Amino acid sequence: MEEKRNKPLILVTNDDGIHAPGLKALVDIAKKFGQVLVVAPDEGRSGMSHAITIKYPLRLNKILKEDDLIMYSCSGHPADCVKLAVNQIVDRKPDILVSGINHGSNSSISVVYSGTMAAAIEGGLHGIPSIGLSITDYSSRPDFSACKFFGEQIIKNTLLEGIPEGICLNVNFPKLPLNDIRGFRICRQARGLWIEKFDKRVDPHRREYFWLTGYFDNYEPDDEDTDEWALKNNYISIVPVRVDFSDLEAMKKLKSLYAKPGL
Amino acid sequence: MEEKRNKPLILVTNDDGIHAPGLKALVDIAKKFGQVLVVAPDEGRSGMSHAITIKYPLRLNKILKEDDLIMYSCSGHPADCVKLAVNQIVDRKPDILVSGINHGSNSSISVVYSGTMAAAIEGGLHGIPSIGLSITDYSSRPDFSACKFFGEQIIKNTLLEGIPEGICLNVNFPKLPLNDIRGFRICRQARGLWIEKFDKRVDPHRREYFWLTGYFDNYEPDDEDTDEWALKNNYISIVPVRVDFSDLEAMKKLKSLYAKPGL
Repeated sequence: MEEKRNKPLILVTNDDGIHAPGLKALVDIAKKFGQVLVVAPDEGRSGMSHAITIKYPLRLNKILKEDDLIMYSCSGHPADCVKLAVNQIVDRKPDILVSGINHGSNSSISVVYSGTMAAAIEGGLHGIPSIGLSITDYSSRPDFSACKFFGEQIIKNTLLEGIPEGICLNVNFPKLPLNDIRGFRICRQARGLWIEKFDKRVDPHRREYFWLTGYFDNYEPDDEDTDEWALKNNYISIVPVRVDFSDLEAMKKLKSLYAKPGL
Repeated sequence: MEEKRNKPLILVTNDDGIHAPGLKALVDIAKKFGQVLVVAPDEGRSGMSHAITIKYPLRLNKILKEDDLIMYSCSGHPADCVKLAVNQIVDRKPDILVSGINHGSNSSISVVYSGTMAAAIEGGLHGIPSIGLSITDYSSRPDFSACKFFGEQIIKNTLLEGIPEGICLNVNFPKLPLNDIRGFRICRQARGLWIEKFDKRVDPHRREYFWLTGYFDNYEPDDEDTDEWALKNNYISIVPVRVDFSDLEAMKKLKSLYAKPGL
């Protein structure tokens, strides 16, 4: 990719695919800050988490080249898009990565299943200040005007101040008009779980199949420091995300357990 | 599934697919402890992380029913297998979930990409004491004899003592004969990164494609409390895994940043 070193390089991706309105909204914001490179899946890949493509080869397709905007579609998952962009397309490390704007919330435990957040995490692993952005609106045409207004502030802030090392940000916007949003709130991920409800059907050949559906169960609805509380109370939630899964407290307990003789 | 309430119910899955030798090795261990239910992907799904299947329906295929062993193949990813097993097949919560034995290490940052560990994490989210097991041998026919010996101890221990709440275990076995293994070591996940090396090729129709390959870079090779150190020093690594991505330390820094007027 041709370089313009005087301008920040902004890598944009998502998991709803190259044609998603949420991606367009994010590109509109990003263009205000510098040179924009989009590498996004060629179709929607929601719920693909941090999947990478090992069994099949990956394809990149350049679909737009304007002065400050280059767009590629990619046959892979969101994490593949980031890896390909960093390794094969750019000649310098992007100054910032933004992923989204996802059509649907990625708060609480949804971060585990989210391709949007996987892309942000992958960017963070590569040392790029990275942000995943989502709106609590699952429709195909959400109103992104509030996301644009506040998202611009987040990108500006990140370009100026960076993000703590080893961290990426999980930003969720409530589905509200601009004036009803009460501002930003730094949160932790609420404890909760998606409770499955499989929709069991029978196909025309009399074979069973299952559609995965479900509802979210918030285990701590009254905890004001969680992302779920923030969103329900008209705030934008910002969770600093680190992908170290090790639980140091549990290490102590297990050490005594696995030191037992005659285990 | 028919119940035998006097025997522990052991749910077995993996990401290498229903035909993987590593799954058979794990079933061999599990059968010693109770009634075994296998729900595993119908083909290899390595690197699929915590992906779930939303766009397509899921299929279950019962392929074996013996006295204490029932096996289903599933068209979905490892996390789908766990969700389907818990929601559609069993009438009681499994006493333990074991995932693997994965052909290849899932230490350090590989936990992020691992389908094996996603299944264990999903089990943990459902309140099942869950363990992912992997061997640092990527071949199709690893020697699982040491895994069987020590894996049996881990399952026995977990059935007796449980696992700390909200935790699942990431167990990695070094590629060694039984007698060369120095025992268990409770660890944290080493900081490190997969460095991509895309193999760029041109197909017969003159279109480019990319194969994802790479090597692992350990950022802290000398830290004796990490899983990478344990494995390199002939120990079995056990990392207690919690999927709360929130970084409480970073929350403090961000709070001051996002409280600034005129952001």
